[in-house]
Amino acid sequence: MERKEKITVVGAGSWGTALALVLADNGHDVRLWGHNPNQIEEINRLHTNEKYLPGVELPNNIIGYSSLQDALNEVETCILAVPTKAIREVLNDMAEVHKEPLTIVHVSKGIEPDTLLRISEMIEDEMPEHLLQDVVVLSGPSHAEEVSLRHITTVTVSSKNIEAAEKVQDLFINSYFRVYTNPDIIGVEIGGALKNIIALAAGITDGLGYGDNAKAALITRGLAEIARLGTKMGASPLTFSGLTGIGDLIVTCTSVHSRNWRAGNLLGKGQKLEEVLENMGMVVEGVRTTKAAYQLAEKYQVKMPITTALHNVLFQHANPKDEVDALMSRVKTHEMEDLANVLSSEQ
Amino acid sequence: MERKEKITVVGAGSWGTALALVLADNGHDVRLWGHNPNQIEEINRLHTNEKYLPGVELPNNIIGYSSLQDALNEVETCILAVPTKAIREVLNDMAEVHKEPLTIVHVSKGIEPDTLLRISEMIEDEMPEHLLQDVVVLSGPSHAEEVSLRHITTVTVSSKNIEAAEKVQDLFINSYFRVYTNPDIIGVEIGGALKNIIALAAGITDGLGYGDNAKAALITRGLAEIARLGTKMGASPLTFSGLTGIGDLIVTCTSVHSRNWRAGNLLGKGQKLEEVLENMGMVVEGVRTTKAAYQLAEKYQVKMPITTALHNVLFQHANPKDEVDALMSRVKTHEMEDLANVLSSEQ
Repeated sequence: MERKEKITVVGAGSWGTALALVLADNGHDVRLWGHNPNQIEEINRLHTNEKYLPGVELPNNIIGYSSLQDALNEVETCILAVPTKAIREVLNDMAEVHKEPLTIVHVSKGIEPDTLLRISEMIEDEMPEHLLQDVVVLSGPSHAEEVSLRHITTVTVSSKNIEAAEKVQDLFINSYFRVYTNPDIIGVEIGGALKNIIALAAGITDGLGYGDNAKAALITRGLAEIARLGTKMGASPLTFSGLTGIGDLIVTCTSVHSRNWRAGNLLGKGQKLEEVLENMGMVVEGVRTTKAAYQLAEKYQVKMPITTALHNVLFQHANPKDEVDALMSRVKTHEMEDLANVLSSEQ
Repeated sequence: MERKEKITVVGAGSWGTALALVLADNGHDVRLWGHNPNQIEEINRLHTNEKYLPGVELPNNIIGYSSLQDALNEVETCILAVPTKAIREVLNDMAEVHKEPLTIVHVSKGIEPDTLLRISEMIEDEMPEHLLQDVVVLSGPSHAEEVSLRHITTVTVSSKNIEAAEKVQDLFINSYFRVYTNPDIIGVEIGGALKNIIALAAGITDGLGYGDNAKAALITRGLAEIARLGTKMGASPLTFSGLTGIGDLIVTCTSVHSRNWRAGNLLGKGQKLEEVLENMGMVVEGVRTTKAAYQLAEKYQVKMPITTALHNVLFQHANPKDEVDALMSRVKTHEMEDLANVLSSEQ
């Protein structure tokens, strides 16, 4: 019943490569595009991508491409797995070499500062209409390292066109990669993007040595603040209780694999933002997303105390300990008032 | 403005002792009752409780008592911090020696098998009416070890009489122990009790080596199943998004301090239940709670797949790996159907 397809994964970082591996396990012809010719040669000759997925052997039906035109030739479905900062440039390059309508499945987590567009909106904004079939988002609690080891992982796909999401579900689903659909694309994208802010903040409290009780409080309030903004933007509050909400938030705030948590941890230990970003050597999406979410909170007039505190630390040179202590020592209050805000903001 | 009180903490385990320390920091006359005379002597002579809070120096205004009658003399508020299994016996002893109405603040997390009573209901059931002023529950993401180090911690208090809860809030609140009120006592008690089931299951997946992606999926579904049962029992679904819901669930499933997680971890590594309980040397509340929740699921006709799987492992000799794999490999589906059940079960 399953149809084998030519599928192109644009972006050969850890997540793009892990998703290529899932698609290859399902028997598809997988083309993995990256801009670094040495890396592509490594993928084709040694079937490894040591920098991003150390120790993992890639299936033979993943073919590396350094030409975007060749990679996209005769392809109808493309997985876009590049940092949010690079998305517009890559889409521009794709539009120059590709002539047929594409379904683009994006797997990035962020919001564009200033324009305040979600990633699916950025794609619709940048890609000429005649080249765009559907836009689908794939998101959830899914560290690439674990997926590449075939550890059981659950993700959600969403799209304005639910049939497109179901088609993507069919491409990816197998015994270890469980794919669910959810029609609420706003909620799925907002949950995925904003959890990186809370992960940075959780890293800071851990770096300061505050412990698990404080972190649990931070994550709980973090989810409330994400849901508060998301529902104002038109998301369903239920989505934030799902895999792309709580699920992704938990894994990003508590797993050693999370680079946003690691970056926050270094900030909590006293490093400056510039040092941290230099030391990481990978993109820390949460920094850009904090800027965007701070702007969204102003636009939608939603209180986001954690986002605001983090914004102060990242962009106003505020002291991390002062900001965390201020967050935690709010006057005594009724818990329900906080929580009720989530649902009342629907109206 | 604050009134200093005589307060008795019944139960000198780690949580009872940590709460005694918070009350002592707030200047109250704290009486800590325990049944082991050697332990009480240690508390009074050395100001330590090494077995339960190693390395912690207790304030001088905590006085240990091994006589329940003396401990409760002239006291109006009592913190009940004993394992759920011992609650009825201790209440019986209290009723024999105390003659005045008491406000009982319980801090235990469980449900009584067979009677299916929450702890506050057990207290109302067991304690003669003329001896009972109010029943308050205090719950939330709060490892005792961290509280005893004065790490920032947030908890929720609830009661059928919200003024009683507010009074308890005043007794406990300080700069590191942040106390919120919530009128939904059913939700607060159910969330606190049932998270131990999910923690046992999360320990099993970790013990099996399944990784953080699978654990995040389990916790997400676990919260949905807790909320599904809780709302049928009359709780507000919002409470499960708060400190005693998500917050406590996260800390119990991801912290090294959690004994329910540790017990599950040993089960996942292949130990038998009897061995595990023997090796732990502390009460693992989740085992009894699994039995009670399984019965509640039948009574209220609610689907609780994780509780059922754990019940099979604990009481039917099912293989942990088979049960986890069956949980994770459900047929592809729409995420929202799962989530919508939470709210629709309210009606």
